[in-house]
Amino acid sequence: MLENIKKEVYEANMKLVEYGLVLFTWGNVSQIDRESGLVVIKPSGVPYEKMSPDDMVVMNLSGERVEGALNPSSDTPTHLELYRRFPDIGGVAHTHSTFAVSFAQAACGIPPFGTTHADFAFGEIPCTRDLTKEEIEGEYELNTGKVIAECFENGGIDYNAVPAVLVHSHGPFTWGKNGLKAAENSAILEEVAKMAYLSKTMNARQANENIINKHYFRKHGEKAYYGQ
Amino acid sequence: MLENIKKEVYEANMKLVEYGLVLFTWGNVSQIDRESGLVVIKPSGVPYEKMSPDDMVVMNLSGERVEGALNPSSDTPTHLELYRRFPDIGGVAHTHSTFAVSFAQAACGIPPFGTTHADFAFGEIPCTRDLTKEEIEGEYELNTGKVIAECFENGGIDYNAVPAVLVHSHGPFTWGKNGLKAAENSAILEEVAKMAYLSKTMNARQANENIINKHYFRKHGEKAYYGQ
Amino acid sequence: MLENIKKEVYEANMKLVEYGLVLFTWGNVSQIDRESGLVVIKPSGVPYEKMSPDDMVVMNLSGERVEGALNPSSDTPTHLELYRRFPDIGGVAHTHSTFAVSFAQAACGIPPFGTTHADFAFGEIPCTRDLTKEEIEGEYELNTGKVIAECFENGGIDYNAVPAVLVHSHGPFTWGKNGLKAAENSAILEEVAKMAYLSKTMNARQANENIINKHYFRKHGEKAYYGQ
Amino acid sequence: MLENIKKEVYEANMKLVEYGLVLFTWGNVSQIDRESGLVVIKPSGVPYEKMSPDDMVVMNLSGERVEGALNPSSDTPTHLELYRRFPDIGGVAHTHSTFAVSFAQAACGIPPFGTTHADFAFGEIPCTRDLTKEEIEGEYELNTGKVIAECFENGGIDYNAVPAVLVHSHGPFTWGKNGLKAAENSAILEEVAKMAYLSKTMNARQANENIINKHYFRKHGEKAYYGQ
Repeated sequence: MLENIKKEVYEANMKLVEYGLVLFTWGNVSQIDRESGLVVIKPSGVPYEKMSPDDMVVMNLSGERVEGALNPSSDTPTHLELYRRFPDIGGVAHTHSTFAVSFAQAACGIPPFGTTHADFAFGEIPCTRDLTKEEIEGEYELNTGKVIAECFENGGIDYNAVPAVLVHSHGPFTWGKNGLKAAENSAILEEVAKMAYLSKTMNARQANENIINKHYFRKHGEKAYYGQ
Repeated sequence: MLENIKKEVYEANMKLVEYGLVLFTWGNVSQIDRESGLVVIKPSGVPYEKMSPDDMVVMNLSGERVEGALNPSSDTPTHLELYRRFPDIGGVAHTHSTFAVSFAQAACGIPPFGTTHADFAFGEIPCTRDLTKEEIEGEYELNTGKVIAECFENGGIDYNAVPAVLVHSHGPFTWGKNGLKAAENSAILEEVAKMAYLSKTMNARQANENIINKHYFRKHGEKAYYGQ
Repeated sequence: MLENIKKEVYEANMKLVEYGLVLFTWGNVSQIDRESGLVVIKPSGVPYEKMSPDDMVVMNLSGERVEGALNPSSDTPTHLELYRRFPDIGGVAHTHSTFAVSFAQAACGIPPFGTTHADFAFGEIPCTRDLTKEEIEGEYELNTGKVIAECFENGGIDYNAVPAVLVHSHGPFTWGKNGLKAAENSAILEEVAKMAYLSKTMNARQANENIINKHYFRKHGEKAYYGQ
Repeated sequence: MLENIKKEVYEANMKLVEYGLVLFTWGNVSQIDRESGLVVIKPSGVPYEKMSPDDMVVMNLSGERVEGALNPSSDTPTHLELYRRFPDIGGVAHTHSTFAVSFAQAACGIPPFGTTHADFAFGEIPCTRDLTKEEIEGEYELNTGKVIAECFENGGIDYNAVPAVLVHSHGPFTWGKNGLKAAENSAILEEVAKMAYLSKTMNARQANENIINKHYFRKHGEKAYYGQ
């Protein structure tokens, strides 16, 4: 079932390797078929070079495995919660990319220092609060998803305009209309995080609101005029 | 028309990829034919690996598309303003290369810390002032070009001796006798910016004027003796 | 003798090159056959591209060469001491990888700043004390091994849970169930060290204990549920 | 004449590219034939990919071109002065490698922070004094060589034990028994400089003298026991 999506999810996962975002088996990408409510995700702990589209695992939104011989990524409950809470998204990616993780470890959102950031996301990439002991010792991966959604809801952040988050002490999740776009957003986030690290250590301040607005809406929404 | 220049502009754009200066569709190079006053530039938002010389767009200096099926780079009005204001240049390149962008985000020119810089540019690579709300909400890309030209004129900086600028909160533009040279200057600027970041975070001071003069004029102008 | 292990040790050494952890002849990996008590290790100062499995040297735990035409790595006595003191390990790797060495040079353990670290090691990667003049001028490489073991014993650190150490002013040693796993741990340590450098220079604090516990035991021990 | 040395010098120059130490035409390596007193060096400003062994230029120690159609590297007088002042060396390399240049721009020698440094050089890699206005406006490249030699002589530094220097506001020169070894030393210097930058920004102090002695003499001199 969902053979095309399995192929797309496989390819989106391989893009993480191509973009230089993962070491060994780290990282995972999923994609949802909104019609059936089924999610295709990378299996857990399988080396990328030995993986094939057939190894992708199909889950339903209740967290049951519907198809696939392998265990799904251990981060699957986080992905599923994001699909439940963010109804417009079609793909989710998770990496431990170096600079994005470093901001998460510093418990620090990524401020919009310039237009590269504004081309990608509208305002700061937030860092979630720390999970509580109970959240960690309970359904940890599910609670990670809940804390991400809470961060956007409580902060009044539009997940369609900010397609990325840093989980406190952990690392980034990104999303998009499908798995490939989510993986691309992981690559952009890492580059934006690297620039932000360098800017921050040179005492940069946030860019002014006007140029952030300009660059975001030059590329996104009805009045966008970037591209063909 | 201008088939040779289209090929050169295509190749100069591909050099940005080879030099490791761009992610996805970021970056653009143009070249002017001074005789006809026509400018050839990369189309907007087309992946480098799918681009061909035929996709290059021909513009006149008034900003009208003269030939080409695709929209030109959204930064085209900046390029055109640079060709109008800097009559000696033949090519312009724009990237979001990591270290140069970081200086732009820190609103900080690149000081001439040593001979690598002086071999490339005579004195600081300036960072422009921030654009005003009106400039941003008006003809933003055109105004970006105007602010660059203003920065050189008001600062008494010779654009022939300093072939690069950082636009505040944005990133670098470079130029040269043609598109290829402009792209090469983007690569050199990025390396110079990286060295400057490292030097700055070790509390370096500007190199003395004598060695800057020496290295600049060893490679540039009538008394240059570098090369064949 | 031990032809299979020679091949494995050769391949584990070549992995150091593939992972980008070594320059020239730097770095070495060994593996022990616990049944016979024999250790197979890289020869000293031989370029990786000219090395073959047959060049691997076989040592006994008393430090005598049992087979092989070449001198063993000059760090061999350190490897042997680790095999004697840490009876559960099957492989040892030593590199001069950039970020791990930098922490060793700063005489600074790597704090557990986040889950990437906790997925790998349970708590801080320790940095040993400085060797004394007598230890350096005596059997230096043997004493290096002794100081590593002392660091774990005196610090109450479980070498099975923390598969890496930084030797003061020197660099990292890592271990695992075999040479390949030890080499992989060198690659993970370097990535963890890079993230820690970036986090530290952004004033990060250690991650809370709960999430460290969670991530470590999600991947290690009886209740692990990562992987297949 | 000297066809073998031309080939070796050509290959040593190409190693600078392979080691990732040069951009465009930057960098140069030379080698001396001590018997004839002739020096073979890279031509000035020729792209590496278009260069062949036949393009190498032969100079005598008085600075006259003995053979070759192309101009020698503009840094030739520095190389020649080093051959005159440091009679034991057989090859010289000059690069603008990123981290070594950054220390030169910060006017800061590279302190011996650890064993990677001590394996390579005995004590600090010195940074020369700034050249005077007269030295810069006079025979600049010759004076650069004189200031390097002065730095070693006045500082009581043995050029055989410290095969590298940073020229103030400029960058590194390295040397060795031939051009290839000089190029290898440029690669090691860059790695040592990178580690030193990272260590320094984590407030490292110099390694103690005993371990520096140990590592240097483990690899160099009569009692060395590293390698075959």
